[in-house]
Amino acid sequence: MTPSKRPDEVVLRLPQWLRQFAIDRQVRFDTREARMQFVIDLARRNIEHKTGGPFGAAVFEAGSGRLLAPGVNLVEPLNCSIAHAEMVAIAMAQQAIGSYDLGAGGVFCELVTSTEPCAMCLGAIPWSGVRRVLCGARGEDACAIGFDEGAKPGDWVGALRDRGIEVVRDLCRDEARAVLQHYLTAGGRIYNARGEGPGTGE
Amino acid sequence: MTPSKRPDEVVLRLPQWLRQFAIDRQVRFDTREARMQFVIDLARRNIEHKTGGPFGAAVFEAGSGRLLAPGVNLVEPLNCSIAHAEMVAIAMAQQAIGSYDLGAGGVFCELVTSTEPCAMCLGAIPWSGVRRVLCGARGEDACAIGFDEGAKPGDWVGALRDRGIEVVRDLCRDEARAVLQHYLTAGGRIYNARGEGPGTGE
Repeated sequence: MTPSKRPDEVVLRLPQWLRQFAIDRQVRFDTREARMQFVIDLARRNIEHKTGGPFGAAVFEAGSGRLLAPGVNLVEPLNCSIAHAEMVAIAMAQQAIGSYDLGAGGVFCELVTSTEPCAMCLGAIPWSGVRRVLCGARGEDACAIGFDEGAKPGDWVGALRDRGIEVVRDLCRDEARAVLQHYLTAGGRIYNARGEGPGTGE
Repeated sequence: MTPSKRPDEVVLRLPQWLRQFAIDRQVRFDTREARMQFVIDLARRNIEHKTGGPFGAAVFEAGSGRLLAPGVNLVEPLNCSIAHAEMVAIAMAQQAIGSYDLGAGGVFCELVTSTEPCAMCLGAIPWSGVRRVLCGARGEDACAIGFDEGAKPGDWVGALRDRGIEVVRDLCRDEARAVLQHYLTAGGRIYNARGEGPGTGE
């Protein structure tokens, strides 16, 4: 551990390829499947560019299909364990609208994620103001390649529904899972804060 | 919702008073109580300076008592629902050491928080690499003034212990709780993404 100068800020910055990629896609995504395909594509490109773990997410305005913010897992490049794809997308979307509440003004926002949220991202969802979550691969699909989803409540879907947040699972699951498998076969790092047992990700 | 330009970064920046406050305290904190008093003081000052919710946290190197990073709740000033005190402290500490793993190299880090972690911060703890968590007020003390701790696993202390993370509760609890009460009587905002039901915080 280097006793470096104590920082006074942390910058969650999207990688260069994603900034360009998102600029090129200032379009609306009409269907749920199109939104899921977009985040699966983010996960795939994050592997190709070696800018983090195999996870993509985005926040959309549900009615119009407008992309508010994309996110990818940036834990390793940013040296920041909280920089999961969902957290990045939520924080970026809140910057975009200038509010910590993505439901401000009655707007209905949707978080779309290539793999079901880990315990941290799950806990973040009610605070974010999104009203719906669309999931691709299951948590168990991430665990199958060595990632860890953390200690989630048994009925996490019900816990979100109890707070008025709809959950849609298994959207394009096969394709989303294939990206996880690709990460494994490509030799992607299953990083793990403890260096023992299963890794941590999403 | 203003359809503003899509941002490509989010900056988690400590407020000016805290930057100065931490610079003034480049010392070691020998006891657990001293570390807890420090984060309770952060919570109190965050109320006074009106820079966020009544929550403080910090990461210390447990053996030496060296402060790696402080954090306070910055949800409202940063328009960022993930900017809870614990998340800010974890992210800042990881920047300070240049690793997403606060346990890298066998270092034993401790997260000290003025109130027990909400569901999001709880989920973040295993990914951070800290090996111990010291808590002041209980989650129920935050709920008592209207905040919400989210859907945590029933035995969350056991869930952390199962991952090799020690939890110490009720450290200076009365004093920590008094700060929460002070926030309420001072008219502090119990913000809530949905504007209905209990607020969200920590």
